[in-house]
Amino acid sequence: MRSTPRTPNTREALNVAKEMISDAIVENLDIKSLTATSRTIRIVDLGCSHPLKGNTIPRAYHLISLNSKWFNDHVSNDFNTLFASLPPDRKYFVAGVPGSFYEQLFPSSSLRVVHSSYALHWLSKVPEQLLDKNSPSWNKGRIHYAGASDDVVSAYAAQFEKDFEIFLNVKSKEITGGGMMILIVPGLPEDIHHAKLPTGILFNFLGSSLVEMVNAGIVSEPQLDLFNLPISIYAPSPKEMTKLVEKKWCFSIEKMEVTDPRLKIDGPINLQALIMQPKSRHGRSFCPTLWT
Amino acid sequence: MRSTPRTPNTREALNVAKEMISDAIVENLDIKSLTATSRTIRIVDLGCSHPLKGNTIPRAYHLISLNSKWFNDHVSNDFNTLFASLPPDRKYFVAGVPGSFYEQLFPSSSLRVVHSSYALHWLSKVPEQLLDKNSPSWNKGRIHYAGASDDVVSAYAAQFEKDFEIFLNVKSKEITGGGMMILIVPGLPEDIHHAKLPTGILFNFLGSSLVEMVNAGIVSEPQLDLFNLPISIYAPSPKEMTKLVEKKWCFSIEKMEVTDPRLKIDGPINLQALIMQPKSRHGRSFCPTLWT
Repeated sequence: MRSTPRTPNTREALNVAKEMISDAIVENLDIKSLTATSRTIRIVDLGCSHPLKGNTIPRAYHLISLNSKWFNDHVSNDFNTLFASLPPDRKYFVAGVPGSFYEQLFPSSSLRVVHSSYALHWLSKVPEQLLDKNSPSWNKGRIHYAGASDDVVSAYAAQFEKDFEIFLNVKSKEITGGGMMILIVPGLPEDIHHAKLPTGILFNFLGSSLVEMVNAGIVSEPQLDLFNLPISIYAPSPKEMTKLVEKKWCFSIEKMEVTDPRLKIDGPINLQALIMQPKSRHGRSFCPTLWT
Repeated sequence: MRSTPRTPNTREALNVAKEMISDAIVENLDIKSLTATSRTIRIVDLGCSHPLKGNTIPRAYHLISLNSKWFNDHVSNDFNTLFASLPPDRKYFVAGVPGSFYEQLFPSSSLRVVHSSYALHWLSKVPEQLLDKNSPSWNKGRIHYAGASDDVVSAYAAQFEKDFEIFLNVKSKEITGGGMMILIVPGLPEDIHHAKLPTGILFNFLGSSLVEMVNAGIVSEPQLDLFNLPISIYAPSPKEMTKLVEKKWCFSIEKMEVTDPRLKIDGPINLQALIMQPKSRHGRSFCPTLWT
């Protein structure tokens, strides 16, 4: 008898986030005075991916009589598919902006609303200490911080801190005074230790497979020890986010909420079913609303 | 003995156009006062294509300390290739804007310099009269206006007029007061009749091939009569351009020049060689500089 695949209720999490975005816009953005004082209201989706992956600026932004939507992602993103999926009868202007959101991509004070959904957890690089045999953060036998030592977790946390500080610094230049930033980030509540990141189940399965390949002589042990997932993710806690935002005087947090899809990882894992549902995300999301 | 393929000196034409652009910028755009009064100078390349096709904003624009370069073309353009080809160490912001330049693609008064190179000759559609058996412009047995009757030429000219008027109307909204528009258009000098369009040699070869297919029973005659090149081009004369621009009070022509690569079609045609040089263009270019 096979157990039911254990997946969190991602759809529910996204609906909660959408409601939060709507509330934040209605409560905090003075659309009337904005449209009276500026010719263009620009909103940008950072790390937009393309529609097939389910990101892009959510419907909630239709509450703003939008003038321009800008879609950002890495140069390697499929902008062709993104552009082809935009409604032809749209009432707003669009532009695609290639590049890393850790660099300045927009002219200073040119953005009114910045949105980023499920993108800020991608670190800019693998923390260097993980590859250093002499470091306490050497990540021997693992490919991610899930299930690893506190030192390894700290290396990831430090990289997230660096990246997020750069992000805030760059965004503080790009966003106009009184502008708004709404971030949806896969995160962990305070009461779950980082090393127990639920998403890590998949990374650990992959890591175990590599260990088996070492045992079978297909991959060498040093190769495994030097390998960490090149696209690294880190799921911060609300406390970490608050600390980092408060270090930068130019933003204040208006609202931060952890959405509440109950983690449904409460039984044995059906790996095959889990892998066949690649869109499932195993963590809680939270949605801070920042102001510059 | 095979004759030398007859191709116009396109490289020479482009070099002349580049010099003209540099001169126009230096003589007419007050960069110092522009940078003092506005935070961002935006330049857009309409119908940019992608770098492999050789368009995109020319180097001459480096004379302006650019802040933002926007690249526009149809949704079906390969923006992925375009973005990947941009220099990673660029000192300006970039954005891709998908859509037809016959529609408003940018917020009002948001553009300072508009450039379009070898794009405005693409008509928005095949003129309808060409497909109407009862019209004097019915284009029986041909697929383009090259070599056709005056009525057919007039139908193309009328479509170009409609399209160019829409273009000027839309650009007058998008370009800020005192902005600049530089257009490179494949055109014909006044002393060459439109039906004798040199580019038409290729269209006529294609048309003749279709006629042969009709004679061989592969294609029916009505099918050929209803077919015109779906991507229609029209090469206007400087007089036509002047007349159309002067109809719109919001633009004035600062400068218009016909570049002077001598048409080298002065002997028999080596079709194979001609077809193997798809980048050659058989006409003269001119480059009007318009002001709003």
